[in-house]
Amino acid sequence: LKITAIAGGVGGARMADGFAQVLSSGGVTVIVNVGDDFDHFGLRICPDLDTVCYTLAGLVNPQTGWGRAEENWEAMGVIRKLGGPDWFNLGDSDLGLHLERTRRMGEGQRLSTITQEVCKVWGITAAVLPVSDDPVPTWLETEEGLLPFQEYFVRLRCEPPVSGFRFAGVDQARPAPGVLDAINSADAIVFCPSNPWVSIDPVLAIPGVKDALVIQKENGKRLLAVSPIIGGQTVKGPAAKMYRELGISPSALVVAAHYGDLLTDFVFDSSDRYLIPGYKPGIVFCPSATHKLDQSGLEGEIRFWDTDILMKDRADRRRLAAEIMVWLEEGPAGGKA
Amino acid sequence: LKITAIAGGVGGARMADGFAQVLSSGGVTVIVNVGDDFDHFGLRICPDLDTVCYTLAGLVNPQTGWGRAEENWEAMGVIRKLGGPDWFNLGDSDLGLHLERTRRMGEGQRLSTITQEVCKVWGITAAVLPVSDDPVPTWLETEEGLLPFQEYFVRLRCEPPVSGFRFAGVDQARPAPGVLDAINSADAIVFCPSNPWVSIDPVLAIPGVKDALVIQKENGKRLLAVSPIIGGQTVKGPAAKMYRELGISPSALVVAAHYGDLLTDFVFDSSDRYLIPGYKPGIVFCPSATHKLDQSGLEGEIRFWDTDILMKDRADRRRLAAEIMVWLEEGPAGGKA
Repeated sequence: LKITAIAGGVGGARMADGFAQVLSSGGVTVIVNVGDDFDHFGLRICPDLDTVCYTLAGLVNPQTGWGRAEENWEAMGVIRKLGGPDWFNLGDSDLGLHLERTRRMGEGQRLSTITQEVCKVWGITAAVLPVSDDPVPTWLETEEGLLPFQEYFVRLRCEPPVSGFRFAGVDQARPAPGVLDAINSADAIVFCPSNPWVSIDPVLAIPGVKDALVIQKENGKRLLAVSPIIGGQTVKGPAAKMYRELGISPSALVVAAHYGDLLTDFVFDSSDRYLIPGYKPGIVFCPSATHKLDQSGLEGEIRFWDTDILMKDRADRRRLAAEIMVWLEEGPAGGKA
Repeated sequence: LKITAIAGGVGGARMADGFAQVLSSGGVTVIVNVGDDFDHFGLRICPDLDTVCYTLAGLVNPQTGWGRAEENWEAMGVIRKLGGPDWFNLGDSDLGLHLERTRRMGEGQRLSTITQEVCKVWGITAAVLPVSDDPVPTWLETEEGLLPFQEYFVRLRCEPPVSGFRFAGVDQARPAPGVLDAINSADAIVFCPSNPWVSIDPVLAIPGVKDALVIQKENGKRLLAVSPIIGGQTVKGPAAKMYRELGISPSALVVAAHYGDLLTDFVFDSSDRYLIPGYKPGIVFCPSATHKLDQSGLEGEIRFWDTDILMKDRADRRRLAAEIMVWLEEGPAGGKA
């Protein structure tokens, strides 16, 4: 099976690494959010893309899930001493990537081309595609006004309550070369356990992406999401907090409802089985009919699977990816269990 | 005495450090060449200015004379691994300065203001002024065509024979705030032992600078140059090579002739005494009248002083600066010895 995964940062990167461990070279394509990309100190910084690449290359800091392992912070120390903004951590090795990417973009190279060449140098066998070569910065509507994503996410530590999301310039953005092909040629699509609002939605919002997914579903392909929420909490990041601020009680089910009829399959944590009355693995369930949802419910029907979805180490990622591959190979799409 | 020094990179920085050691806070102003400033990897890099600041702050690498001591090279290692241009060395700590300067310039801050604040943080008591806040990039006319300064100086290691120099945009450039004041209020002006063609000339070419120096000389102030050439060679850099390529046999005397009637005093190395027939310290000498020069000779008369001008360590810088202070305080300007 060829898998195309849609990913944001840390959770997405870990899930993608699971598939890269399980599938042979050429078997995995990762389409990555670019909504959190920004310019800082004159450099183009692509946090989700870098987290995915560092993770797949085995270079990532295993403690934080982002940035590089065994990183030095000399440049940042000088910036701090000079009174510059130090809220966004830039490690010395990490800076090398930002510098070279900025240089190449200044020469007119596409982000997708640069990413491909970086992956080659680092021996990454999965194909990593930024969803777009066009800048589509995510903005958050908050009680403190409209905030650029990194200001909200890093500088303000996700503290301002959120009331909405904007993907600036998204109507004019085009999918990067290879993105629609990766959706069309995949045997199955996986929505990684990333933030639905600010990691996956900005990918789906690029014109052409959602339509391509809908067509693949109509063609009988499986579209599976992995819950980023366990027991009402996120492993990392503000997804659960955002749901609460938007008036929605966070749970695996509201994530399933969020993607709605884009999905055929949904994987959630075994500890959340109690959410579905009469649950058994592979049950086809329509939360909107049986479960009070605060948002628009599921319009289609989704096959639910459960396992331990918490990825604590590389072995967990591999196991989860392998289990997902079994479900995708065995269970029929759309039918009753 | 208040000294205003005109400086390029390593030699200029070392001479300026000598004066900073000898004179009290507020006694030294250094006007620094910006002709070698350039953009690289999206960052604004000011090599001469940084060499002066690192030297005055005691942060400089004592082996190379530029860059920081105890520097790491993680970012550069990544750039190299990714196949980026690695001909210009960017240390990790050094990058911190380039990043913060680039960020502030992006906000519209002047280079001179940023430099002032950097000097304050690093405890530099001398006033350091870029000669202009406007970009005035030096280009070299060479056998390989017109080359930007750093391409010639670093990437091509000064190898292409030089036939001329251009200071792009110099006619529109203005002296940075404080530059003309520093010339007008100084008790004496010192031309540091820097490259006349590509370190001092680009400073003199900024509209208003040369005129201010001429007026100060007419007012009876001393304008003293320290030779960058000893025994026909430079301590660092391509000045002697450039003289040869321009058809001029390099010596302390041709440097004195280069500055011509801008000078009242010239300091050269004792090993070069043989160049002046009947030399004794303080002799007033007009090379153009008595010595075959390949370029326009000296129009005025210059008082020559000799000592050991090679600055091998901080103590040498202090001694040379102190000797210059004695000559400037004792000897009359313009008169015969």
